[in-house]
Amino acid sequence: MKIRVGVLGATGYTGAALLGLLINHPGVSVVWLTSEKFAGRKIQEVFPHLRNFLDTECRSVARLKELEKVDLAFSCLPQGTSMHFASKMLDSGARVIDFSADFRFSRIDVYEGLFKTRHKFRAILKEAVYGLPELFKEEIRGARIVANPGCYSTGVILGTAPLVKNGLIKQNTLIADAKSGDSGGGRAPTLEHHFPEINENSRVNSAASANQRPEMEEVLSGYSDSDYEVTFLPHIIPVNRGILTTIYARLNRKADPDYIYGLYNDFFRGEPFIRLYGRGRFPELKHVSHSNLCGIGLGFREDVFISIVALDNLLKGAAGQAVQNMNIMFDFPETESLNITSLYP
Amino acid sequence: MKIRVGVLGATGYTGAALLGLLINHPGVSVVWLTSEKFAGRKIQEVFPHLRNFLDTECRSVARLKELEKVDLAFSCLPQGTSMHFASKMLDSGARVIDFSADFRFSRIDVYEGLFKTRHKFRAILKEAVYGLPELFKEEIRGARIVANPGCYSTGVILGTAPLVKNGLIKQNTLIADAKSGDSGGGRAPTLEHHFPEINENSRVNSAASANQRPEMEEVLSGYSDSDYEVTFLPHIIPVNRGILTTIYARLNRKADPDYIYGLYNDFFRGEPFIRLYGRGRFPELKHVSHSNLCGIGLGFREDVFISIVALDNLLKGAAGQAVQNMNIMFDFPETESLNITSLYP
Amino acid sequence: MKIRVGVLGATGYTGAALLGLLINHPGVSVVWLTSEKFAGRKIQEVFPHLRNFLDTECRSVARLKELEKVDLAFSCLPQGTSMHFASKMLDSGARVIDFSADFRFSRIDVYEGLFKTRHKFRAILKEAVYGLPELFKEEIRGARIVANPGCYSTGVILGTAPLVKNGLIKQNTLIADAKSGDSGGGRAPTLEHHFPEINENSRVNSAASANQRPEMEEVLSGYSDSDYEVTFLPHIIPVNRGILTTIYARLNRKADPDYIYGLYNDFFRGEPFIRLYGRGRFPELKHVSHSNLCGIGLGFREDVFISIVALDNLLKGAAGQAVQNMNIMFDFPETESLNITSLYP
Amino acid sequence: MKIRVGVLGATGYTGAALLGLLINHPGVSVVWLTSEKFAGRKIQEVFPHLRNFLDTECRSVARLKELEKVDLAFSCLPQGTSMHFASKMLDSGARVIDFSADFRFSRIDVYEGLFKTRHKFRAILKEAVYGLPELFKEEIRGARIVANPGCYSTGVILGTAPLVKNGLIKQNTLIADAKSGDSGGGRAPTLEHHFPEINENSRVNSAASANQRPEMEEVLSGYSDSDYEVTFLPHIIPVNRGILTTIYARLNRKADPDYIYGLYNDFFRGEPFIRLYGRGRFPELKHVSHSNLCGIGLGFREDVFISIVALDNLLKGAAGQAVQNMNIMFDFPETESLNITSLYP
Repeated sequence: MKIRVGVLGATGYTGAALLGLLINHPGVSVVWLTSEKFAGRKIQEVFPHLRNFLDTECRSVARLKELEKVDLAFSCLPQGTSMHFASKMLDSGARVIDFSADFRFSRIDVYEGLFKTRHKFRAILKEAVYGLPELFKEEIRGARIVANPGCYSTGVILGTAPLVKNGLIKQNTLIADAKSGDSGGGRAPTLEHHFPEINENSRVNSAASANQRPEMEEVLSGYSDSDYEVTFLPHIIPVNRGILTTIYARLNRKADPDYIYGLYNDFFRGEPFIRLYGRGRFPELKHVSHSNLCGIGLGFREDVFISIVALDNLLKGAAGQAVQNMNIMFDFPETESLNITSLYP
Repeated sequence: MKIRVGVLGATGYTGAALLGLLINHPGVSVVWLTSEKFAGRKIQEVFPHLRNFLDTECRSVARLKELEKVDLAFSCLPQGTSMHFASKMLDSGARVIDFSADFRFSRIDVYEGLFKTRHKFRAILKEAVYGLPELFKEEIRGARIVANPGCYSTGVILGTAPLVKNGLIKQNTLIADAKSGDSGGGRAPTLEHHFPEINENSRVNSAASANQRPEMEEVLSGYSDSDYEVTFLPHIIPVNRGILTTIYARLNRKADPDYIYGLYNDFFRGEPFIRLYGRGRFPELKHVSHSNLCGIGLGFREDVFISIVALDNLLKGAAGQAVQNMNIMFDFPETESLNITSLYP
Repeated sequence: MKIRVGVLGATGYTGAALLGLLINHPGVSVVWLTSEKFAGRKIQEVFPHLRNFLDTECRSVARLKELEKVDLAFSCLPQGTSMHFASKMLDSGARVIDFSADFRFSRIDVYEGLFKTRHKFRAILKEAVYGLPELFKEEIRGARIVANPGCYSTGVILGTAPLVKNGLIKQNTLIADAKSGDSGGGRAPTLEHHFPEINENSRVNSAASANQRPEMEEVLSGYSDSDYEVTFLPHIIPVNRGILTTIYARLNRKADPDYIYGLYNDFFRGEPFIRLYGRGRFPELKHVSHSNLCGIGLGFREDVFISIVALDNLLKGAAGQAVQNMNIMFDFPETESLNITSLYP
Repeated sequence: MKIRVGVLGATGYTGAALLGLLINHPGVSVVWLTSEKFAGRKIQEVFPHLRNFLDTECRSVARLKELEKVDLAFSCLPQGTSMHFASKMLDSGARVIDFSADFRFSRIDVYEGLFKTRHKFRAILKEAVYGLPELFKEEIRGARIVANPGCYSTGVILGTAPLVKNGLIKQNTLIADAKSGDSGGGRAPTLEHHFPEINENSRVNSAASANQRPEMEEVLSGYSDSDYEVTFLPHIIPVNRGILTTIYARLNRKADPDYIYGLYNDFFRGEPFIRLYGRGRFPELKHVSHSNLCGIGLGFREDVFISIVALDNLLKGAAGQAVQNMNIMFDFPETESLNITSLYP
């Protein structure tokens, strides 16, 4: 029997990626979609590539009460809005996977300081599980509500967790320089993402750095005795999908590469979506884009440690990770509908 | 029980696309791969995106006799070379799907005039079936050897067949202007396909026009009383994948759009990979790229008829069509492993 | 002594290209710029690449009367709006080069039918000269107002004029298939021009075809006995700049290539921005982009004649041509500030 | 009177950029060009965009003795080869600007360790001046031979020199993460730079890091008491031109941003090609590409200092800087033929 799924805010890029995965999932039936901009229109008019795959009409979230009951709701609504509808979905008996930052922080002061707004759902915030399966699989399994991680945070955390957990990274030396495809900026047209402005260009992506830095700091701090600081700077590059993050850090003590490769292998043993690279090899965007994989390669230069992480921002960085979380929550095989290679070239 | 499959010349872009589809096909076991350039190396070293999906070692075609028996061999070898190995595979009892131009022409004089070389396997040429399933499904079903169509030819034929078959296109007025992604040029590095030369550029693709024009002319002529001429000019555009072909023609007689839309609907009824567009709508590369779909939109301006066709050159234009042919030849569902949407954006 | 120049609507891509040329022109002083969106801000804030080159503040066109008198006004205002301000500038004693379609048509019925609006400045329309210097240099020299041609029209007209003038193209067989960079769509952000929608995509550019077809038809008809029809279809390709137009036509009578190459050579003799290509050679976008050049290559296949034209849509297709017109109108050397090569790669 | 100039190895991307500048330089006459690959062919056949601008025939460097005497030779020959011909040009009485790494290091052991080869021209090495005009203008003025800096080194040095000189950067904390366009990889086609491999991809550019790290370390060490180490990692992004370098460092002592902005302003005062950005503003590739400008923006996060540098790798990173050096050496205005804005968009 299939689980019944609804998608709130389905007509952005994350929605497109999510629907693309859900229609191939044998255990899922997509019951409804919402979109304010396209309410009343068929999803295949919004996303012509879904024609003949999905025929659902977009509905308005304003009439949430009229929507059929579902087992799981994905919320792709924006930060600040999402918490309200997530709460209502929980009340209706659904479990929730939320893509916004609304439930990612355990510390409410961090959330409220960051977004200059009061968080109205403290109990839910407390209950929410951070949906990074490689770190929190057991918590995710039983969760009513999962906060799907940020795309940048996913890369930085996966690229450093084995070292941070083992106390090997010298505090406050962690620098993460990310290069992201433009779809991370969303589907709403702005001058900053107008084709001639991005094509043949690269620039700092100031907007993104603000709210994902505290997110990665909180998760990494969970492994540490005190607050963990990350210097994080994202850049836009003219590709559609993918994030390549180069992480630099200094180690607390002399550690030979073999030992560190061993830590990474142990940490990620059995994880179906992590691809560790051997000595002198590094992931490229093209190795992972259009897949749910996260590639990690390591480098060493005297006491500087380098970790290079590649993932698809819309899959392992968003919709793919959400489906992975769903698979865990509903006892599907973890790789169901995600067992896809990158589409090269 | 799975069929056993071998791939000759597996390490180009067509090979990559083909392997990507075969590893997801429940009825197929990939038994061997050949590559002269990478013989002795694992396929996942050549294509890092296939890591953990396929672990086969590339072998040399020079030692064909040592390869295990297979039920089906795909040949991605170049024109002129492919026919020799296709012949040997047939002798070994395998069926063959050949991507080269070696078995696409029924008229040997056309082949020999075009390639300035003698065709040494006339009996096989006679036997070979042109592998365009929307036109020749029954012939493909029983074929020992299938000539997989050219990527440009697929678009031009599918975009015009309903009209040509009904004698509606005025002879010799057919003009096909194609815009192709660069992967159609293959994986061997040349100055013409060096990144800075293609990026921010567009140019006529002279190399491609020579041998696909006679191919599309022969197939379309099969519907006509006399030889059918096509003015065909392909161009390179800076995308990885996809061909957008705009076809212009004059009609033999006044025909109203409704009638012509009807002809297209009838012709392609039940075809799982054809997406016809309604009035005023046209396919874009992004609607079909990374899928096996072929999108077709029609336009009318006085007596000029326009057909716009979009397909992924490596899938419906090569590896996807080959897998579709395999599905037909071996009684798999026609859409097996091909039921994939475009990965938007 | 320098001429004094004003630019109406200076903060789009055409404005950027125009300012880039004017600041290098020894005979020009840019006196004022207008922009509604950026009124009150320095141009170098809008276009950071102009920093240290131009320090002018953008002003509002609403306060046109307060602007200093100029010898020449360029109007980059939109169609429908431009005519009003062009008229006022003429009244102030300035000459005008207008980039909109407002003064491109000599037949008012064509203009009014196309734009569903009354043309309020019929006398000016009558007076305006179509600013294609290779055809109308003498008229431009003395003009008070020049209608700068459309980017697509420039390519189609230059690519066929020698044949049309000599009556060699069979009427109504002319088909122009254009591939344009995205900057032609302007600087206002829309979903259609959002980076992830254009990148790795190509599609018909429906918006553009409507109003440039009658423009090219009118100019070509001027060489012909009766109305000249063009089947014109523009497409968007993912590059910033440049238009590659492939033109197909049938000839009225057998004409050997040498004769036709001769016609083109004669027609364009002495024209500093036309680059004719010899047999078997064709222009690429990269040969001309970022320059004011127009490359033209010819092809012949039985009775089908092919002309391939490449130009930079913002230079020879807009701002470069406007400066060329200005040079002619004000007796500067025709190539002043335009003697620039393409910036390869 | 014009100086007479020759170009050794003129048919790569650096050569193209250099010729593009030299043909617009009123004080220069290009007397000869060499190219082994294209010897005997006109330069405009190699670079069609130079047609009508330069008509010179490429000659072979093997017949160096037959070449006319020049006042200045640019050598774009590869490292290891260049030193031989630079030496011969000096013997002939010419001054030399060398693009290779052959004369960039003052310490011969660094050169020989890096390239595993003996340096045969120690006296010339000793005499050579490092051609970064913002640091060594006076030395360049009188130099017989100038070593034109590496493209990455130019960015890292310019982005940090004011701080390093003032002893503000904590030793060995300097990390430079560069994102480079693909033209930096040269014009020789390889699989790594094949269009479909670079397009929609980003990866570490391992090849480049080896030899420019010691170069930037040596120059920065010149300002310091002891050897200065840089962690330098370059990445390839799918653009043609431009390098965006993000530099992270820790400061020796608390220094307020105003003080540091002041240091940068003082250091670069009067430098025509340096564009410093104010608080919260950062350079983008598009602000500087196709120009000789170097944009520098600063950021501060607690004790981490960030410097973001943008330049065009073929201009300020190669040919533009070489022409700037030539202007200084031959008493032309420093900006002659370089007073060009970025061509936006």
